[in-house]
Amino acid sequence: MKKNVLIIGAGGVAQVVAHKCAQNNDVLGDITIASRTLEKCEAIVASVREKNALKVDGKLEAHALDAMDVEATKALITKTGAQIVINVGSPFLNMSVMSACIETGAAYIDTAIHEDPMKICETPPWYANYEWKRREECEKAGVTAILGAGFDPGVVNAYAKLAYDEYFDKIESIDIVDINAGDHGRYFATNFDPEINFREFTGQVWTWQNNEWTSNKMFEVGKEWDLPVVGKRKAYLTGHDEVHSLSHILKVPTVRFWMGFGDHYINVFTVLKNLGLLSEQPVLTAEGQEVIPLKVVKAVLPDPGSLAPDYTGKTCIGDLVKGVKDGKEREVFIYNVADHKEAFEEVGSQGISYTAGVPAVAAAMLIATGEWDVKKMANVEELPAQPFLGLLNKIGLPTRIKDENGDRALEF
Amino acid sequence: MKKNVLIIGAGGVAQVVAHKCAQNNDVLGDITIASRTLEKCEAIVASVREKNALKVDGKLEAHALDAMDVEATKALITKTGAQIVINVGSPFLNMSVMSACIETGAAYIDTAIHEDPMKICETPPWYANYEWKRREECEKAGVTAILGAGFDPGVVNAYAKLAYDEYFDKIESIDIVDINAGDHGRYFATNFDPEINFREFTGQVWTWQNNEWTSNKMFEVGKEWDLPVVGKRKAYLTGHDEVHSLSHILKVPTVRFWMGFGDHYINVFTVLKNLGLLSEQPVLTAEGQEVIPLKVVKAVLPDPGSLAPDYTGKTCIGDLVKGVKDGKEREVFIYNVADHKEAFEEVGSQGISYTAGVPAVAAAMLIATGEWDVKKMANVEELPAQPFLGLLNKIGLPTRIKDENGDRALEF
Repeated sequence: MKKNVLIIGAGGVAQVVAHKCAQNNDVLGDITIASRTLEKCEAIVASVREKNALKVDGKLEAHALDAMDVEATKALITKTGAQIVINVGSPFLNMSVMSACIETGAAYIDTAIHEDPMKICETPPWYANYEWKRREECEKAGVTAILGAGFDPGVVNAYAKLAYDEYFDKIESIDIVDINAGDHGRYFATNFDPEINFREFTGQVWTWQNNEWTSNKMFEVGKEWDLPVVGKRKAYLTGHDEVHSLSHILKVPTVRFWMGFGDHYINVFTVLKNLGLLSEQPVLTAEGQEVIPLKVVKAVLPDPGSLAPDYTGKTCIGDLVKGVKDGKEREVFIYNVADHKEAFEEVGSQGISYTAGVPAVAAAMLIATGEWDVKKMANVEELPAQPFLGLLNKIGLPTRIKDENGDRALEF
Repeated sequence: MKKNVLIIGAGGVAQVVAHKCAQNNDVLGDITIASRTLEKCEAIVASVREKNALKVDGKLEAHALDAMDVEATKALITKTGAQIVINVGSPFLNMSVMSACIETGAAYIDTAIHEDPMKICETPPWYANYEWKRREECEKAGVTAILGAGFDPGVVNAYAKLAYDEYFDKIESIDIVDINAGDHGRYFATNFDPEINFREFTGQVWTWQNNEWTSNKMFEVGKEWDLPVVGKRKAYLTGHDEVHSLSHILKVPTVRFWMGFGDHYINVFTVLKNLGLLSEQPVLTAEGQEVIPLKVVKAVLPDPGSLAPDYTGKTCIGDLVKGVKDGKEREVFIYNVADHKEAFEEVGSQGISYTAGVPAVAAAMLIATGEWDVKKMANVEELPAQPFLGLLNKIGLPTRIKDENGDRALEF
């Protein structure tokens, strides 16, 4: 049994995490929100209070923290008595925050792989580049560290684990498809930090096919999918954290990630990329100022948080799993549909942030209750899927399945 | 009779001007090239020497100069004994350089209207915003100041003047069409300073139609033209310096400027503009750095000078003039065709720089010989066209005409 949560980050996902923690503070205890910019944390606290989101009376506080500073993070963990840290700040912070957790004994949760700010699209094996190097260290310290506990990675890993445990004797392929059929009404915007968003797509795309890493260019391999609720949408092979962990942990021969993109997004992205404006390497202006182009692109784009009030439409994210059960070939699509407007009304963020933030809170609750407090490092597919998906059914991200028996809600 | 030339600027156009001045230094005397960056000036001097371009023995020197500093510019004029200043630096410099000329008595030549760095696409009347305010001052000082003596504005103004004097009793409209049918082989590049290039197109487009200023959006009004050599090309209404001066000085009811653009240019431009990346107003990055997006775009784009070696194809720029002669409606197209590769072989710059730089040297030669040394401020259409066009026939930009009598070279 662990209690008291420290949320690191103050973006759209942190906002969702704070609201959901508040809604479940009978399980989670005190809540602290910390990021470099105190005002952003305070705005989240104000938003939680405005919605009266705290289920029971309890602490809800904002703190300024540079989470690259391990000692400062340790001090805040100690001061707040946090036994669970939900890291939804920049992916550049993962290793620092993990160090603070290992040294204080607090449980660690994140939603995306660690990134080095000076490297884009590192080559696989991704988790093995940073996180998995610290497995022994976590186990020795008895620290629970749950990696990639957002939606994708996160919930889609649990879908894969469920399929692996319940629906197949042998899985041949997992295709994770992420479609955002929402409309934010702007000329162009990214749904989360543009810097992180673009970094995903500027290098080579890596997928795991027939038991080996396969590389191609971004937007090179596209396919039209026909998914529940959102209908026909084009998605493209994209490198994504869970391709590595699922192929490695569940030993599935083919794991691919497909991200939906409209032609307009691809055009804007292509122009920016070809001009060199998505580069993380500094350039020198004629006036001698050293500038990182990607940071300027980020500065001119809408703040992803600002999109939420006008965002309409739905997301559909799921796993198409193919394989064999009882000697027969079969395929199932396990998925969730989320609604941007409903997300905004509940927690003040759009659907993309909602799908990323709610699972991290579910993971925290399972650590609090002990079910996922495994005292070692684990990816989501190494943990029992049913308590996680069952909890998500209750707190906002219900699971559905579509197979030869139809399209229906899954109960756990 | 005036002698000795000070060239201000060290870009592609300055390179052309230096070569052409050298080729005609029997008329022009000593040549000095000055800009903020001495190395750029020295590179131009080296290029002129490499081609053995100096017609007769004579001085050819590079100097560092911040031409915003009027006193420094005056001192350099005095030191070099320059009686003619060709300003082909940034359009932000015009007023400062003009001050230095007025105070020293040197003749002034430029190729584009003055611009305030903090304003984009100022509303008409353009020349009246800055240059024409100083007409009396020039006249009083007896200083020759020739405005807009590049190709467009410049040669196209002389074409209009020629049509006005020789081919029409009454002109109804002048449509200036500028088509670059060249290919630089890059994903995207501008043919001159990107900052200046984009500034032309980010605001409203102003044209003079039926004796009044008419405004529309950039790329809103397009038309396919079928021109000599370059064939069918689409061009769009664009605001341009000479629309103002020609309508005002020649009292023509309709003066329009059409700039040719390919769909790819328009797409890149539209993306950058809609994202706010062409803004001359600073933005703040997440790290707190103040940056002007347009300057970052400039920094990532190819240096226009670097395009020259690979540039192939031709430009066609001319005036379609409609009106009445001897009671009959007629129309003539007066134009020049230039070749990128030939320009590079002769002076080491591409065709766009060539067409802008050669006319400024022709203007300098006409000041040197006295024909254009009018001791006041003048736009090109206020000066006799024939000596100018006759000289251009000899030094690289021959004039052709297409009318009811066919398509032929014009001799003067």
